[in-house]
Amino acid sequence: MEAPGDEAIHAAVRRPTQRRQLRNPNPKMRARLLAAAACQIRDRGYANLRVEDVAERAGVSIGTFYLYFEGKQDLFVELVREFSEQLRRRLAEADGGEGTLRDRMIRRLSAYLDFVGENMPAFLHYRDGGAIDTNLGPLATWAIKVHAADLRPLLAEGMAAGVLPPTDPELLSQALIGLTQHLAGYWAEYRDRYSREAIEEFLLAFITSGIDVARPAQPGPAME
Amino acid sequence: MEAPGDEAIHAAVRRPTQRRQLRNPNPKMRARLLAAAACQIRDRGYANLRVEDVAERAGVSIGTFYLYFEGKQDLFVELVREFSEQLRRRLAEADGGEGTLRDRMIRRLSAYLDFVGENMPAFLHYRDGGAIDTNLGPLATWAIKVHAADLRPLLAEGMAAGVLPPTDPELLSQALIGLTQHLAGYWAEYRDRYSREAIEEFLLAFITSGIDVARPAQPGPAME
Repeated sequence: MEAPGDEAIHAAVRRPTQRRQLRNPNPKMRARLLAAAACQIRDRGYANLRVEDVAERAGVSIGTFYLYFEGKQDLFVELVREFSEQLRRRLAEADGGEGTLRDRMIRRLSAYLDFVGENMPAFLHYRDGGAIDTNLGPLATWAIKVHAADLRPLLAEGMAAGVLPPTDPELLSQALIGLTQHLAGYWAEYRDRYSREAIEEFLLAFITSGIDVARPAQPGPAME
Repeated sequence: MEAPGDEAIHAAVRRPTQRRQLRNPNPKMRARLLAAAACQIRDRGYANLRVEDVAERAGVSIGTFYLYFEGKQDLFVELVREFSEQLRRRLAEADGGEGTLRDRMIRRLSAYLDFVGENMPAFLHYRDGGAIDTNLGPLATWAIKVHAADLRPLLAEGMAAGVLPPTDPELLSQALIGLTQHLAGYWAEYRDRYSREAIEEFLLAFITSGIDVARPAQPGPAME
């Protein structure tokens, strides 16, 4: 299966006409526009993002903006891609390839929750931002696919070594990433109600043992 | 905690001016417009939904459309709400309140996968449709909250009866619904690769036992 993290992603909708392209785009200008947009989204969300405000915040003209980005969707896809890349690096560092599978997964989970904790409310804005279609499918599922693809080899190793029961590594990585992202989002929404530790403890218990409902049922009166 | 399923939901953005309201709106006309929109979305997705096409498909004028709906977002929220209501009824029927917790959860899961299977690709279009903000928060997380709220009492009963290990029933219901919805979406995206049975079997195993990585680790050479 393809590794979606290594494929170039862009918004599915392109401008119908060829826009002016820079022969030597300035990476610093591009970074400045992205940083300005990231601030706007963090403060006000994607729905309220306006190209005019991004250009103004970056101190450039709207014309300059369009030399670097096709528009609002293109910019947002790029920000989500950068955000995912940062997270991937953090997870890879935390993993480090040392220790048991359990150690490595716990370190990855911990690094993930650190990252989300440091990046609230941006995390929620990226999650809820735009239902944007890209050349690699819907943006929201693309990010999950990238992280699932990173996790899959670790799970496959665990199965090969007999530490994990054999199952479909693709489904398992999707389950783990989808579940963790969902609960991280829930935490970010209700951070006044749940501590980081409570979320981490719950996730570890659920991931390692499930709900344990399989053990011989003892239906009490309340269950009928 | 509030029961989000019983609260009226509408798009957060309302028309700035008061639109004309019907004194006696015709429920059949409303249903006809919703059915026309559902067909458009099933065939072409939300991004390509146009009010003009919905009106034409329903055989009414655009003016009539706006007597019933504020616009595209309002219409989509209403469709997602109806879709969720259908699903809630199916899950409640499948549950039926009889049998052990395990029996009831298996029946619920099976009914959920039946529903998704019958409603592809609409399910994906609703999932990916619009990043729409509502009076009850982002539309995508609202639907999960509704289903989690329905499941929570069952889980709380199970804990009270000692069939489930004690944990936070809110986090557990979010985990179960978020996980199941995510994998159902994955199945819908890759239905040529996974059978309904494979998804159901995987989910049951994961939900009941987790990945079992907690058992004494036997790190093999492949794990280092």
